[in-house]
Amino acid sequence: VNGERPIALLVSYAGSAFAGFQRQAGPRTVQQVLEEALGRLSGQAVAVRGAGRTDAGVHALGQVADCCLPATCRIAPDRLPLALSATLPPDMAIAGAEAVPPGFHARFWAQSKHYRYLFWRAAVPSPFWRPYAWHFSGPLDVAAMAAAAADLVGRHDCRAFAGSARPVDDATRTILECSVCSAPPWLAIDVRADGFLYRMVRTIAGTLFEVGRGARPVSAVRAAIAGRDRRLAGPALPAHGLCLLGVRYPDAAGPTPPSPGLWPP
Amino acid sequence: VNGERPIALLVSYAGSAFAGFQRQAGPRTVQQVLEEALGRLSGQAVAVRGAGRTDAGVHALGQVADCCLPATCRIAPDRLPLALSATLPPDMAIAGAEAVPPGFHARFWAQSKHYRYLFWRAAVPSPFWRPYAWHFSGPLDVAAMAAAAADLVGRHDCRAFAGSARPVDDATRTILECSVCSAPPWLAIDVRADGFLYRMVRTIAGTLFEVGRGARPVSAVRAAIAGRDRRLAGPALPAHGLCLLGVRYPDAAGPTPPSPGLWPP
Repeated sequence: VNGERPIALLVSYAGSAFAGFQRQAGPRTVQQVLEEALGRLSGQAVAVRGAGRTDAGVHALGQVADCCLPATCRIAPDRLPLALSATLPPDMAIAGAEAVPPGFHARFWAQSKHYRYLFWRAAVPSPFWRPYAWHFSGPLDVAAMAAAAADLVGRHDCRAFAGSARPVDDATRTILECSVCSAPPWLAIDVRADGFLYRMVRTIAGTLFEVGRGARPVSAVRAAIAGRDRRLAGPALPAHGLCLLGVRYPDAAGPTPPSPGLWPP
Repeated sequence: VNGERPIALLVSYAGSAFAGFQRQAGPRTVQQVLEEALGRLSGQAVAVRGAGRTDAGVHALGQVADCCLPATCRIAPDRLPLALSATLPPDMAIAGAEAVPPGFHARFWAQSKHYRYLFWRAAVPSPFWRPYAWHFSGPLDVAAMAAAAADLVGRHDCRAFAGSARPVDDATRTILECSVCSAPPWLAIDVRADGFLYRMVRTIAGTLFEVGRGARPVSAVRAAIAGRDRRLAGPALPAHGLCLLGVRYPDAAGPTPPSPGLWPP
């Protein structure tokens, strides 16, 4: 549309009180709250598209959403984060905004997305980290988990790690990084890929968790990839341990992702 | 009392929903919630004493509280953290517990307490850190703040940094450490001392903040110590930026404080 400005927003949210990213009929979602804030600011209905459709309860440090601001909305991109954040509820903030090329699409243009699944491994839960890390205090063989994680790196059919809710034709994804970092009381599983299937990170984390506690051998990951069968992978771990750290675009077309160091360990 | 066991508890809490540590007639306090949990566990009224009387809204990673468990309560100290945490609300947890010598007093036996005041210096607030760090996005001269902080180390009359609510006879305290650490988007002011006056850390943080933004010279801290006048110090910063990191006891008589690395930066 003439005069419209395509913008990419860097969005942070604590997922606990959101029924996921995507707009739904009833419950509060990230898309809905964000579109309402953009509507208040611009005086017109504004639609956003997210890079990752995070599930209910999943957090985001560096989600990216694109939208077109109407020509009548004259706020410069560098003033958008403050102006928007001021009208958002406390569990969401806009950490950055920038003009993007015409045709930019937060999801289709994304080169890779980086997720982190956090465990809190102390004996008792933390009042501070309880909403953001999954509490597990038993022993874990971190070296076995790391070895199994390394088997995930590469271009594979990943359907064994997809929740059954949304069957897909092409389940081939390129996993650029899959690593396990133990920094007590935290343990982090980092997965970076060009795309993700439904509940893929939580299922990878659950499979590595079962390898860590000795319920599956290290070779289970290789077998699940080869077998392309959901029953060969572990359970999906709870949503609240997962965070979308950042999204990368080719030629720095989108906003710079936040430092992963902002999310422990 | 015969058969009673003196115990020291390592207590963590998010201060947002507490009206401070000390029991009051109406509002919810840390002491009240903790005594209720101990009462449920032991079947008897149990009184606790805290090392630091944190104010409303102040957090604690490593508060120490002592109590005497009745002889009828047979739970071993190493099982107390899980047993107590299970009955506590999600904003409080017991991270450790150990038997202490008869006569132990969490406050009078404390050798030093370590507080950290956190700033969040990004342009927009963080959905995650909003309850735990004070948001300030303007420029700060960190080197000036650090120089002023160094002047606080030593044994001084600290009454210039005490809130006016509770006048004291002897305001002499030994400040063992006062340092400023900038790790964007965080800035931390660490203060370790043998004791603290009312609102002392928040007033020190407010004075250093005014030095940082150029509203007071570096020499203001020295002048406030020498002048012993509240008006020579800056304002007390908001409670939610402050956290009691840990408490140390002579000869390791109490529980080991948590790692300060659990509280950024």
